[in-house]
Formats: sequence, C-alpha cells, structure tokens
Amino acid sequence: MIKIIVAGFRGSMGQKTLNLIKKTEDFKLVGAFSPDATDINSASYGLDEDVQIFNNLTTKPVEADVWIDFSTPAGVFDNAKFALKNHIRPVIGTSGLTDQQVADLKAYAKEQGTAGLIVPNFGISAVLLMKFAKEAATYFPDVEIIEMHHEDKLDAPSGTALSTAKQISEVREANDAPEFKETLEGARGANYKGIRIHSVRLPGYVAHEQVLFGGEGEALTIRQDSFNRDSFMKGVAIAVHKVGSLKELTVGLENVLS
Amino acid sequence: MIKIIVAGFRGSMGQKTLNLIKKTEDFKLVGAFSPDATDINSASYGLDEDVQIFNNLTTKPVEADVWIDFSTPAGVFDNAKFALKNHIRPVIGTSGLTDQQVADLKAYAKEQGTAGLIVPNFGISAVLLMKFAKEAATYFPDVEIIEMHHEDKLDAPSGTALSTAKQISEVREANDAPEFKETLEGARGANYKGIRIHSVRLPGYVAHEQVLFGGEGEALTIRQDSFNRDSFMKGVAIAVHKVGSLKELTVGLENVLS
Amino acid sequence: MIKIIVAGFRGSMGQKTLNLIKKTEDFKLVGAFSPDATDINSASYGLDEDVQIFNNLTTKPVEADVWIDFSTPAGVFDNAKFALKNHIRPVIGTSGLTDQQVADLKAYAKEQGTAGLIVPNFGISAVLLMKFAKEAATYFPDVEIIEMHHEDKLDAPSGTALSTAKQISEVREANDAPEFKETLEGARGANYKGIRIHSVRLPGYVAHEQVLFGGEGEALTIRQDSFNRDSFMKGVAIAVHKVGSLKELTVGLENVLS
Amino acid sequence: MIKIIVAGFRGSMGQKTLNLIKKTEDFKLVGAFSPDATDINSASYGLDEDVQIFNNLTTKPVEADVWIDFSTPAGVFDNAKFALKNHIRPVIGTSGLTDQQVADLKAYAKEQGTAGLIVPNFGISAVLLMKFAKEAATYFPDVEIIEMHHEDKLDAPSGTALSTAKQISEVREANDAPEFKETLEGARGANYKGIRIHSVRLPGYVAHEQVLFGGEGEALTIRQDSFNRDSFMKGVAIAVHKVGSLKELTVGLENVLS
Repeated sequence: MIKIIVAGFRGSMGQKTLNLIKKTEDFKLVGAFSPDATDINSASYGLDEDVQIFNNLTTKPVEADVWIDFSTPAGVFDNAKFALKNHIRPVIGTSGLTDQQVADLKAYAKEQGTAGLIVPNFGISAVLLMKFAKEAATYFPDVEIIEMHHEDKLDAPSGTALSTAKQISEVREANDAPEFKETLEGARGANYKGIRIHSVRLPGYVAHEQVLFGGEGEALTIRQDSFNRDSFMKGVAIAVHKVGSLKELTVGLENVLS
Repeated sequence: MIKIIVAGFRGSMGQKTLNLIKKTEDFKLVGAFSPDATDINSASYGLDEDVQIFNNLTTKPVEADVWIDFSTPAGVFDNAKFALKNHIRPVIGTSGLTDQQVADLKAYAKEQGTAGLIVPNFGISAVLLMKFAKEAATYFPDVEIIEMHHEDKLDAPSGTALSTAKQISEVREANDAPEFKETLEGARGANYKGIRIHSVRLPGYVAHEQVLFGGEGEALTIRQDSFNRDSFMKGVAIAVHKVGSLKELTVGLENVLS
Repeated sequence: MIKIIVAGFRGSMGQKTLNLIKKTEDFKLVGAFSPDATDINSASYGLDEDVQIFNNLTTKPVEADVWIDFSTPAGVFDNAKFALKNHIRPVIGTSGLTDQQVADLKAYAKEQGTAGLIVPNFGISAVLLMKFAKEAATYFPDVEIIEMHHEDKLDAPSGTALSTAKQISEVREANDAPEFKETLEGARGANYKGIRIHSVRLPGYVAHEQVLFGGEGEALTIRQDSFNRDSFMKGVAIAVHKVGSLKELTVGLENVLS
Repeated sequence: MIKIIVAGFRGSMGQKTLNLIKKTEDFKLVGAFSPDATDINSASYGLDEDVQIFNNLTTKPVEADVWIDFSTPAGVFDNAKFALKNHIRPVIGTSGLTDQQVADLKAYAKEQGTAGLIVPNFGISAVLLMKFAKEAATYFPDVEIIEMHHEDKLDAPSGTALSTAKQISEVREANDAPEFKETLEGARGANYKGIRIHSVRLPGYVAHEQVLFGGEGEALTIRQDSFNRDSFMKGVAIAVHKVGSLKELTVGLENVLS
C-alpha cells in the first residue's frame, strides 16, 4: 500500500488525483494539503475521517510515502522542500520551478537521502513519442516535426515539439536539413539545429504531434493525440508506482518508463 | 473508336501513352509525330503498319479525333495550332506554354471551332484533392496545407500546394489565419492569403499533399500520394474520353471530372 | 430574418439549437414546443417574452418559416405532419422515422406544397466525406473504409461507414475486392458489395472515418474526425438557411451542399 | 575494416549488397559465392581482382569477418554452417530456414564459438515499429493493427503484422478487445490473442503498417512505410557493423538496435 499526501487537493488536477487514488487498489490517501483549507475537517471535503487535512508547512505531516504536488508556481518550491525534509518522495506536476530551484531541490534531496520526480508532462503518449523519436533518430537522421493545436494556442512551436527537437538533436549526428529555396517565406518551417518544425493551428484540433522520419525507400512516423487532461492520470499513477525505485530527484517521466 | 495522334511519341511519357492506347479498347493509334523521327517507317518503332509517322508540320496528317501532346516546351505551341487547324482536338500534357500562348490558342481554337484540353496535372488524386478542397472550404474556412516531397525537391512550397491554396482562396471568405507568436521563426509556415502552407522534405517520400480543415468539434482531411508517373495515364485516358464534350479549349483536368 | 420554431427545445440538442439561433444574425426564435413544457411562460425558460411556448399540437402555432425538430422518436412523425400542415418547413434531426413514415411525410409534404429536410447526420465533415467519396469512386473503383470509434460502441461497422459504402457502391462499377487468403479469419474486414470495411474500437478515440482509394502509382484518402456534438450546429445552420430552396421533402444534408 | 563474403552475389539483393559494400568506407569485399558462378574470374563480374569468387563449399574461403547471405532457401542452411565452421560470422537475410534448422545452427554456432545474426526483416522502420509497439503496449494495453499492402498480396494478415501482434502479446497483460456485435461479419478484423488486425489491399500501396494505441483521453500511433527494397540496405549495414558484438547466433535485427 502506497501512502499518499496530495498538495493542491482542491484544484482541478488535485481533484482528479483524489479520484485516481480512490480507484487504485494499492494507493491510500493519508493527507491533503492546501493553504486555503481553513477547515481541517476531512469530512468537509468528502474525504475519509483518517485523512489529515493541513494548511501550513509547520504542521507535522502524517507518515507517507509519496507527496503528489499539483499546487501553484508560488508554493511548489517550499512544498517540495517540506516533503523532502520529511522523507516523503515528491512527485511534482506543478509547473513554475526555475532552473535554479530545480538545482537547489536536487541538492537538498541528496542531502536528505530522499528521491523524487519532477514531471513537466504526465501525458504518456507524449512522453513515449519523445522517447521513441530520440531512439529512431539514431537510425534516421532525416526528421521533421509537425504539431497541431487548437486555434487559441498563440505560441508556435509548442513546448512539446521543441522539447522533442531538443531530445532528438542530442543523439542526431550534425545533419542539416536539405538545401531549399522558399518561394513563399516560412514554407520550410522553423529550424532547430537542422530539424524543421511545423505548427498547425485549427479549430476542432486539441493537441497533437507527429514526428516524421524518412530514409532510402522507407518512412517511420510517430504520432500522439491528447484529447483532454484525463490522460495525465495514467502518468501520475506510473510516477507514484515508480518513484520508489529512483535514487535521486529526477526530471522527466521517461526516466521511470523502462 | 477514338482515333489518336501522339506528339512526342519517342519520349518517356509518349511511350507510356502508346502503351495506354494499346491497352484501351476504344482507343486507336493512327499517327505519331516527332521532329527527330527521321525514319518514317512505323515498323521501326514497333508500331502497326497503318500508323502514320511524321516529323514536320507541313505534312497533311491522317484523319484523327484527338492529338495527345507530350512533346517539348519549344514545340508544343506550334503543335497545338497544327492540331486545331486540322480540327483534331488537342490534349496537351507538355508544360511550358506562356499565359499569352494559352490565350492565343484559346482564340484560335474558337476561330477553328475546335475544342481541346490543356492539362497541367494529369494525376487524378491531385486533381480531385484540389476539387474537393475548394468545395470543402466553403464550409470550413479554417484550412492549412502540408505537402511532403523527397529531399531533392528544392523549391517550397510545391506548385500543387500553391495551386491548391489559390483555388481555395477563390471561394473562401476573407478569413485570416489565427493570430500567433512565433518563438522560432517560420513555425507557422508560409502564408498565402491567410492559408498557411507547410513543406516537408525527407528522403523516402515521393510527392504527397494534405489539406487539413478544422471546425468546431470536427476535422476533415484530404490527402493524396503520388508514387510514380504511371499514375498520370489514368488522367490521360479520362482527358481523351472527355475532350469531345468540351465546347472550347479549356485548362485543367477538373473540368472534365463530372 | 428566418423565423424558427424549435421542437424538443428542452433536450440537449434543443438547447444547443437555441444557442445557435441566438448567435446567428438572421435567425429569430418565434416558438418552442415540448409536450412536457407545462409552464408556457417563456421567461421560465430564459426565453424572450414574445416566444410562443406550446406543449400540444392542437395549439395554433405562431407564424414561422422553419421547424427544427430535435424531439423524440415517438413524437417526430406527428410533429413533422403538424409543421407541414401549417406550411412551416421542417428540418428534422430526430432519428426514429421508419421508411414508411418518411414515404408518408414526403407524400403529405407534396400535398401541402411545403418542402423540408430530414437529416440523418448533421456533421458537415461526415457528409462531405461521403459526398467526396462517392465522387472519387468513379475514378478509383478500388476502395476500402476504416472507421474508428471509442471502445463503448458495440456495433460494427458504424452506420456512417455503412452509409458511405452504400453511396460508393451506387456509382462504382461492379468491382470485387481483390482475391485473398485469410490466415487469420476476419483480417480483410467486412464485405459490402466488394468494399471492405474495417472497424477499430479503442479508448480515447471518439468517432472517425477514413476512405482509402488506391490506383496505379497513387492514392487518395479522405478522413473525418468528430470530436463532439457541437459540430452538428454548423450543419443545422446550413439546413435552416438552405431548406427554403428545396422543392420537396428531401433526405440528407448533402442535398443542400452545393 | 570489416572483410566480407557475399553469398548469392548474383541475385538482386546480392547485387544491392555489393553496391552497399562499395559505398561504405569500412567495408571491404573479399569473397563472393554462388553455386552457379562457373566462371571464377572476378573481373567477369566487374569485381576487383583480389575478390575470391567460389562456387562450392569445399573451397577454402578467404579470411573474412562477416558472411552476408542472400542465397536460396535450399542453400542457406549449408552456407551458414560453412561460414560458422570457418569462424566467419553469418548475417543471414535468406528466408526458408525451418525452426529445427535455426535450432541446429544455434547449437553449432555455440560449438564453434562464433556468433551471427539471422534477420527475417532488414527494414529498420519495420523493426523499430515492432520494438516501439512492444514497449508502448506496457502502458497502453488497448491496441489494434492496420496493415496496408498492394492488391497482389494474397495472404492476410501480413507476416510483419502478425509478428508485431505476437511481440505485443508477450508484454501485454491478458486484455481482451472490447465486446462487440458485428452487423457485417469481419468488421472487427482478425483476432490474435485479443489484438485485432485489419488488412487493407489496394493498388498504389506498397507495404505499410500502423499500430494504434488508445487510452483515456489520448492516442499513440506508430506507422511505417516501405516503398522499395533499397530500404533493406540500411539494415544490412547495421547488422554487419553490430554482429561482432553478439555472443551467439541470434534472430532479429532488433537485438542489435541499442
């Protein structure tokens, strides 16, 4: 049985996490943290009597194995330190940690002898796509990325597409994209170290990414589609199950996908 | 039985056309023209005895219904005039006619009372894609184009992609692509009147085009793949069968696809 | 201004329709019918004062141009007759009419000199897919269908896929699928007059259909994705705008897509 | 420098292999074997003077590192034994070995202390697809396979699709495909241990495979396209480069893809 504290339990992801815990046989909710939980009666939140509700980090937390954090950019750093100090392994889905904060947390985790996982993307299909793309690029250095999102997404390319390009470029031999002549500017897309990235924005679409590899007489394509954030819960479950096998505070769900 | 003269019969497309005629029940080869056919003995080219071989446009041609032209940019204009003068309907697959030459031929065709067809693209899948895309754009003004070609194709976007965008823009209400902020220049592709076009170049690929339409809660995608030029012969057959129903010299295979 | 009565206005599709009318400049809601609307005060439903609420078909309806029906299989036949009797053109999205009932309504519509539209599928992407597929099949008799739905959809193939196959088979020359030898039964899918249909059922998927055409050296693929029922409102708007141009009671949205 | 003997050097794959060796910097052709090479003068085959041509397995072969075999089903077993006996690591692309013969060769390889590689499929895109699919199935037990081939491929499903299903089923928890009701028999495809396989046969297509994974709110798709057998040479090169790192006679290119 894995004993879990959820930080940010009143938010949308926090609520989904409570549902996940309820549905998973070997998960047990033992605590729930939120600075604005002024009422510390667990029944008020529809939770079991023995769940500790707390709203500040001076409270001594109940004994737990994993601290799932879906709190706020402002709170996540202190939350993570608190979890590590109490030897509870943090699984952090909250965004907003700076590079310096991540470095500090890694050092502190080592000091405390407690591992953990910081997860920028809980979507398993996206994480697997990146993992496979990185592996395929060893054999197919010719690669382009197409990402497709709803029309309201202003920035292009998407963070996941850029992250995919970065991971591919780590293993890819310096290999520029082929020469070209654009008769209409921008046709060949954005350029990340020779990897061309194309961003489509259309209503109806949600969040999709394709990595296209081409070689003499053959092609390989990996595609992932995210339709909604329910998909993240599968990633949370894996993170919680696997964080115990880590030796240090690690970044990226791919590190616990064997 | 449709009686046919093939101009440029010694080239690669000309040879494929001879094969097509042989295989098609209601097609009959009656003449073959090439300026470099110094030997006018049909047997020398493996053709039936009664096929007229000729190498200049002063020869009086055999009576024929259709003149299929796969000759050269330098010769095609005179060839077309010659066919029209002799009341043989031209089906022209040779590229290189200028806008002025097309206009001149149209006028001359009217004068002669002979129709014909100039065909920039004999690939039925590409022509249907353009036709359907134009129709769909009435209902889905939000549209982007992705074309994918082998790495040796230098120019981007492809002529077919540009032609598709042009045809769509004729029916599409002025509708700009959504606002965006490129963190890496070129990500949102080329811009043709608000239609974004993305060009992929990878080894292994041949010639492919996708038109993506998005709307509230749904999407429509039309894709065509051209693997080789054998595909053009289906278009040639349709053009020959249908050119008789035209009233004037017309540009585009889509005009004989009902 | 098109004056509209909505039947079944309290259901989910009825509510979406009320929203559509509010957002569309030349649409005006004049009446709303539901047998269980015991309260006929329009304000109780958040509707304008001058909207007629009625709950039985003996009431004389307000003057209107179009009757949009999203009621129930039990009620739709009588509703449609009532609309026709009052010379209000019905646009019927309710399912459940039998072939006999459709025939009866057509005859009655002729008698009343009032046209209308029965719409089995308001999804424009699905309707265009069928329209284009039918047209492409003239040129590409070799065709297969793949439909993909969420895992809870029990029946296979889907109604839309079957309907697509039927429409294709009307124009396709008798052309059997190629010979084959299944080493694992069912691999080649279902057979509708030589058109093979494949049904995929997976969680995450919603409702998607692909029609694949193949020919010598080329391929053409048409795909549509339905993510939610919001997409239907675009079809409702088109039907309401175009029903006035029909001469009789007609089945299928494709008949008003020019 | 890797010294190579090519068995079956006069066939189509053998010739492609000679080209590969010529183009690869650290490959050197030292011998070429074919039972019907009655002329053992290397110049007769356009090969360098110092290449040993031989036509029987009693000849003592030139010293070599790797034996690439693209011979015949009838000859491959004896060829492989001959290579192992002479401590030349075989890379076998010839099909036709029975399970018993593979077992015998493995035992003999161990006896001789010589490793080697039997490769049912040299297509890197196909091998990577299988590898990734197997890995993804751990996280996405809901999976279906669609393979598409040219219309002349009689058997369905394809060997690669079946092989993919087998590999997936090794890691996938017993997980039946969802319940369904076929209104047209075969719609849900073939069934391999709960994995549904769909086979499309169309002209224009060559050899393509898609593995579709679905999960709550997301989807992952892996696709590979083989356009021609030139693609196999990349796999041959990898096999030759990596066979030296194997400890025993191994089956499957995936074993040398890190």
